[in-house]
Amino acid sequence: MSSSQDTKQAHFNVFLRAAGHHAAAWRHPSTTPELTFQFDYYKRLALTAERGLLDSVFMADGYVGTGRRLEPFTLLSALAAVTTNLGLIGTVGTTYNEPFHVARKFASLDRISGGRSGWNIVTGHTDETAFNFGKQSHLEHSERYRWAEEFVEVTKQLWDSWEEDALVFDKAKGIQFDDSKLHEINYEGKVYKVKGPLNIPRPPQGYPVLVQAGSSESGKELAAQTAEVVFTAQPTLAEGKAFYADVKGRLARYGRTPDQILILPGFSPIIGDTRAEAQELEDELNSFHDIDRHIAALSERFGIDLTGYPLDAPVPEILNPKGIEDVNGSKSRHQLILDMLRSDANLTLRQVVNRLSAARGHLTFTGTPIEVADVIEQWLDEQGADGFNLMPPIYPEGLDSFIDKVVPELQNRGRFRTAYEGATLRENLGLAVPANRFSASAASGIASAN
Amino acid sequence: MSSSQDTKQAHFNVFLRAAGHHAAAWRHPSTTPELTFQFDYYKRLALTAERGLLDSVFMADGYVGTGRRLEPFTLLSALAAVTTNLGLIGTVGTTYNEPFHVARKFASLDRISGGRSGWNIVTGHTDETAFNFGKQSHLEHSERYRWAEEFVEVTKQLWDSWEEDALVFDKAKGIQFDDSKLHEINYEGKVYKVKGPLNIPRPPQGYPVLVQAGSSESGKELAAQTAEVVFTAQPTLAEGKAFYADVKGRLARYGRTPDQILILPGFSPIIGDTRAEAQELEDELNSFHDIDRHIAALSERFGIDLTGYPLDAPVPEILNPKGIEDVNGSKSRHQLILDMLRSDANLTLRQVVNRLSAARGHLTFTGTPIEVADVIEQWLDEQGADGFNLMPPIYPEGLDSFIDKVVPELQNRGRFRTAYEGATLRENLGLAVPANRFSASAASGIASAN
Ligand SMILES: Cc1cc2nc3c(=O)[nH]c(=O)nc-3n(C[C@H](O)[C@H](O)[C@H](O)COP(=O)(O)O)c2cc1C
Ligand SMILES: Cc1cc2nc3c(=O)[nH]c(=O)nc-3n(C[C@H](O)[C@H](O)[C@H](O)COP(=O)(O)O)c2cc1C
Repeated sequence: MSSSQDTKQAHFNVFLRAAGHHAAAWRHPSTTPELTFQFDYYKRLALTAERGLLDSVFMADGYVGTGRRLEPFTLLSALAAVTTNLGLIGTVGTTYNEPFHVARKFASLDRISGGRSGWNIVTGHTDETAFNFGKQSHLEHSERYRWAEEFVEVTKQLWDSWEEDALVFDKAKGIQFDDSKLHEINYEGKVYKVKGPLNIPRPPQGYPVLVQAGSSESGKELAAQTAEVVFTAQPTLAEGKAFYADVKGRLARYGRTPDQILILPGFSPIIGDTRAEAQELEDELNSFHDIDRHIAALSERFGIDLTGYPLDAPVPEILNPKGIEDVNGSKSRHQLILDMLRSDANLTLRQVVNRLSAARGHLTFTGTPIEVADVIEQWLDEQGADGFNLMPPIYPEGLDSFIDKVVPELQNRGRFRTAYEGATLRENLGLAVPANRFSASAASGIASAN
Repeated sequence: MSSSQDTKQAHFNVFLRAAGHHAAAWRHPSTTPELTFQFDYYKRLALTAERGLLDSVFMADGYVGTGRRLEPFTLLSALAAVTTNLGLIGTVGTTYNEPFHVARKFASLDRISGGRSGWNIVTGHTDETAFNFGKQSHLEHSERYRWAEEFVEVTKQLWDSWEEDALVFDKAKGIQFDDSKLHEINYEGKVYKVKGPLNIPRPPQGYPVLVQAGSSESGKELAAQTAEVVFTAQPTLAEGKAFYADVKGRLARYGRTPDQILILPGFSPIIGDTRAEAQELEDELNSFHDIDRHIAALSERFGIDLTGYPLDAPVPEILNPKGIEDVNGSKSRHQLILDMLRSDANLTLRQVVNRLSAARGHLTFTGTPIEVADVIEQWLDEQGADGFNLMPPIYPEGLDSFIDKVVPELQNRGRFRTAYEGATLRENLGLAVPANRFSASAASGIASAN
């Protein structure tokens, strides 16, 4: 191992989520699910994350269901007003939105936050979503990734449509804009047709940090092409290393280098001052969940009735499970569960449910702060991760203990910053501001947007 | 005049706008147009408005052009985090948006702000907008008002789709939701088809305060049907009174009473401690504008070349001006300028340009704080207004002087509150929380959304 690898530092994002990431978090005595829609609750979490010098907070999103969250643009903008250095990453889907609106809102959030925004680009995964937008069904998996690709291309061109020095405000001469620095994009693809320019200047970061969270073949390809941060579910170090090598290996084809993308697998540590204490918390959480509901969901996923089977005997053999080729939702999620079932013939139904409930298949670990730091160090050193998307099992306690106990341990080991490197999310992640395709200084070698 | 009219109090909204509402505000030495995209600038304005106990701030919006503003949802959410009582009204157009997204963002903003959001419902007015959304042309005027009507109906149903007590969070029983309190809306109109429910609970205010700012026939009808606040441009008291009587007179047809709608004409006072001082400021502002550009715009509007005419002679007779029937943009704006030209045969070109530049045709007045208070009192008493949409000619100075000098004068006269009446915008405007069509207690007489 090279010495530069020895000192590789971790990046941390915190995945916000009402009571926490354990499926039964809301039933734990320490959580207050009634605060799910209260701004002050998220403000407290964000301030804790910032106190701990974490890179960013992140919000998932979707356009269907019973909703357990505030809307990302509104919540992250409000958080921008009460934080200083913390990155603010919002999920916005590409299938039911307009590139112009999305580009503009991110440009505005990036301004308001002084360059701290990030966009988690997703394509959505349920048919039900379509019904809220006058559509009959969700777009087919590869088709929606094609849309996503175009969508991202349009938003980038819109962000570039203002050069840095387009705003003049020369009071004496009476000139507000330098019109030559504003550009129509006249984009015309298979899906989108957008004239531009955008009606707000380029974001301070150039583009918000582009984040991708789909891990199917199409998802990994979109990541390699456009993403700067990848969120992913990797339940074991072996799988994490394979994914890491896979995604980083795809970059060259797009003229990119491995340091231009950070891979942050989800990580849900259950922390206790002693192992026994941590285990107690895990058992307590597992005692709360509605195991019948989980088994019904698994049955539906694989088209096989698992209800009625004994919970503590090995999982009945799933002879002909629905394969990923038949799935139009999240392909990587389906694969992850299949892999788990096949990895260990002795796994009981209860164990499967507990694993999925702990953090929906993401890496989990139960132990002391020292042990948690060990896990993080190992993933960094063995090229499994550039840091983690933290998914505390319960909020706020799980975040507090990470910040108060794991962060200092990592700092002592030289594995985490002791002060923010910069004011923008890009600066803290070590990512460059992308060149503007329209700027004279950047234009050489970069195709004009026509 | 009845004694209750004598004590009628004013409501004030502040129309935020970069350097101010005078067309040449950005050139005035006291303004800093470089701050147009800085959050702290708007934060200062909002805190001033809140110190002055004003009802709300308001942001205009559009999806085309060179943009002189941050995006409303993001900016208002950020302002929500740093204010306590101030209402936050955002313009969101109905022609290029999805009802689901708009309903959800307002529900989220209303939560984050603790019930302080308002929606200025507009239909947009330029063809150019269409080109940013893959469309060939802007919808025809009456057609886009029909879309708006449906759009508002869908959003209301979505807000109603959660009854108040849908969230249970019974930890002991393991029940998060009362499913019987969540409702599909299954809306199917001519334009929109939306299943629902929304994925966030009903806003604290039931609906955000619904604001309308179109004053054409279709605009007034939409206002009578749905609006709770009307923004309008009324350059004289006589016109203001006619508009006030007209709109309030339309309410009965929709089963509504006159107190269910507040009419707030735009008002741009140029304030000085003496008349001379105020006049000096007006002259100074008028000295800054680019009169040629304004004349070119007028020429284009009426399809007649006004360039080259002497500035200080009466406006050349516009023989066959383009009438409002030929206008697909803002019909009321066109009418307002035509009315101005016809009102006074001696008006010079320079005077027309000055009037339009002062506040785009809204009521203006130049004088002392006492005189400004007199104007306000007169409009309240003579049924020209329920308050005003304040449009300070220059920011921040014009707002500061209104708060520091006019507000105390109005308070002395019993014409303005001395403390906020409540925590929500509805409470401060004296508007009721609308009943939920799905609630048992509210259902009688209200058609189910099915
Ligand atoms: C950490 C993480 C967070 C995610 N958040 C979202 C989300 O908020 N909304 C969403 O639609 N999909 C989310 N996804 C899923 C994917 O981004 C993607 O939209 C979808 O599931 C298809 O992925 P696939 O490429 O694996 O098939 C998330 C995935 C991961 C790993
Ligand atoms: C105070 C005020 C503010 C307005 N703000 C907007 C705005 O932000 N965006 C917009 O498209 N139209 C705005 N309008 C115009 C109208 O709402 C409407 O969309 C359009 O001009 C057509 O109006 P009409 O009914 O008069 O033809 C505003 C009007 C007024 C009086």
